[in-house]
Amino acid sequence: MPKKKLASAVATAAADPDRRATSYDVALRAGVSQSAVSRCFKPGASVSAKMRERVMRAARELGYTPNAIARSLITRRSNLIAVLLSNLTSLYYPEVLSELAEQASRRGVRILLFTLPRESDIDHVLDQVLQYQVDGVVAAVRLSPAQLATFDRRRIPVVFFNRYLRDTPVNAVCCDQFEGSRAMVSRLHAAGHRRFGVIAGPEDSVVGQERLRGALERLAELGVRDVPVIPGSYDYDSGVNGLHELVKRMRRPPDAVICGNDVMAIGCIDAARFDFGLDVPGRLSVVGFDGVGPSVWSSYRLTTVRQPLERMAEATITLLMDRVENPGLPPEKRVLSGQFVEGASAKLA
Amino acid sequence: MPKKKLASAVATAAADPDRRATSYDVALRAGVSQSAVSRCFKPGASVSAKMRERVMRAARELGYTPNAIARSLITRRSNLIAVLLSNLTSLYYPEVLSELAEQASRRGVRILLFTLPRESDIDHVLDQVLQYQVDGVVAAVRLSPAQLATFDRRRIPVVFFNRYLRDTPVNAVCCDQFEGSRAMVSRLHAAGHRRFGVIAGPEDSVVGQERLRGALERLAELGVRDVPVIPGSYDYDSGVNGLHELVKRMRRPPDAVICGNDVMAIGCIDAARFDFGLDVPGRLSVVGFDGVGPSVWSSYRLTTVRQPLERMAEATITLLMDRVENPGLPPEKRVLSGQFVEGASAKLA
Repeated sequence: MPKKKLASAVATAAADPDRRATSYDVALRAGVSQSAVSRCFKPGASVSAKMRERVMRAARELGYTPNAIARSLITRRSNLIAVLLSNLTSLYYPEVLSELAEQASRRGVRILLFTLPRESDIDHVLDQVLQYQVDGVVAAVRLSPAQLATFDRRRIPVVFFNRYLRDTPVNAVCCDQFEGSRAMVSRLHAAGHRRFGVIAGPEDSVVGQERLRGALERLAELGVRDVPVIPGSYDYDSGVNGLHELVKRMRRPPDAVICGNDVMAIGCIDAARFDFGLDVPGRLSVVGFDGVGPSVWSSYRLTTVRQPLERMAEATITLLMDRVENPGLPPEKRVLSGQFVEGASAKLA
Repeated sequence: MPKKKLASAVATAAADPDRRATSYDVALRAGVSQSAVSRCFKPGASVSAKMRERVMRAARELGYTPNAIARSLITRRSNLIAVLLSNLTSLYYPEVLSELAEQASRRGVRILLFTLPRESDIDHVLDQVLQYQVDGVVAAVRLSPAQLATFDRRRIPVVFFNRYLRDTPVNAVCCDQFEGSRAMVSRLHAAGHRRFGVIAGPEDSVVGQERLRGALERLAELGVRDVPVIPGSYDYDSGVNGLHELVKRMRRPPDAVICGNDVMAIGCIDAARFDFGLDVPGRLSVVGFDGVGPSVWSSYRLTTVRQPLERMAEATITLLMDRVENPGLPPEKRVLSGQFVEGASAKLA
């Protein structure tokens, strides 16, 4: 965009009497300086209650609202952060989004939402993310090193949520999927389970692959091998179909099914009860991961690993905004342990 | 904001060689006009595949991305729409948001998300919504006539999702809550139910109050009066506690409980089974409203009214964007009927 055209548009917008009062008008009417007006509208700025009241009254009378977009051209801060999510209709990501929105709002920034049908569809929206001049990005989807470099070149900090890149230093906040899965396997094995089956997350889910790797590695250490793994899509039907597949492959039902998330565990429990007449946990132990709302419903009472979502969201926004304000900070990963929840869907020693 | 300061900031941003290539640079390199470059980056604009390829190659080589924010000062279009939601952690609104995001993305606009702890907290974010110069607003929360007038004065169209104002002409897309509740009552009554109880949505939920009104009005027409109504908060625990309250007030269990949404119906079913040992639907019929994902899980198989969310989201974005492009259009309400789902949680004739 040529600067003359833009500057003239800005001038026109500013001169249009119909359009909006300026901070200058407000300052005149309130009898204060223009910078006092700015401070009153800046989230978190220090200003006396009396001053704020005076300015706000003048602003109301004139119908003035600061133009956050025009301001962003001066401050180079849009106060927008992009949140990249896939799978919003799962039960987990809405909880993540809600926590992120809450934490962002406390910092005076707003969330611009980018939802992808699948994690791997990121290329379709990357261009859009850049166009909106966001201050930073929370990526709860996989990004390639090349995609990450695109943000780097524009000095837009990125914090990964529950994933990271193996050989590239990045900012990330993760629940320890690997450790959580290993601990779950240890508990099930100690309680006497030996015939294990796994219903895993999709292959393009980093989180799901970490959980799978943790479970299989620990099982192997304990001498349990050739564990059948059925890939799922994190939804209820994957849990139902997963158990059917496991029973088919193993010829008889397993005694413990490790599911890649809670919703698949719920589907697996329903299939055990309604399709196979198997008591859970009497005949079959089923465990999940996440600690979503329905995991505590009386019909399920899942044995699971709960992710500390609120703390994870807080850490994510903190890491991100620290880097928006101070781009020189080195990459940092924060790994939070999940909380083992001893529900009633698994026999434990 | 004084126009000189803004114009000079724009000029600085445009002149910074480090910062970004302009559309002029891309046009030069691709050997096309600057307006051709603009068209290639405008969602939905007509441009030949050959032209697009040529421009995109040049843009890639120069690391050019259009600045959506600067452009919005010229076009007076930010291509942002605000979505105001409360209760994101319920099971229903994430599905709404996901459908809205999908439909918005097809129109080339992005969603700026505003989540409120309660519907009535709108005043806290209204100012923020105005500052971001959004093109339009989808309100899935209650707005007062005064709040609506604030948007009107700034010529920002608003479409209500599942609510409206009774005495003010507004744009709205609604599922017919009233009709859906009446039809549900008729079916339950025809099947012989006479001892009704209601677990209703919160008092500040317009949707919940419509559903309640529909149910009570139809019950009264059928000669069923003095129906106990327990207010809930749309969550699982409200369903559990609601049934406990009903049993206490009615001295013995009702034969049908009408719940203000599916999640409360799920809580009510679990309480019936696990706390009172009542078979559902053998001893107690429980019905919901919404048709959320878990309503079809085998443990519940809810009898409910499913809202046609996809069609509602499409209608919402269509109404909104039509008014962004043509502000003179008169207010319009679209009321879509819910779909009766005969699950297995109620005895029906």
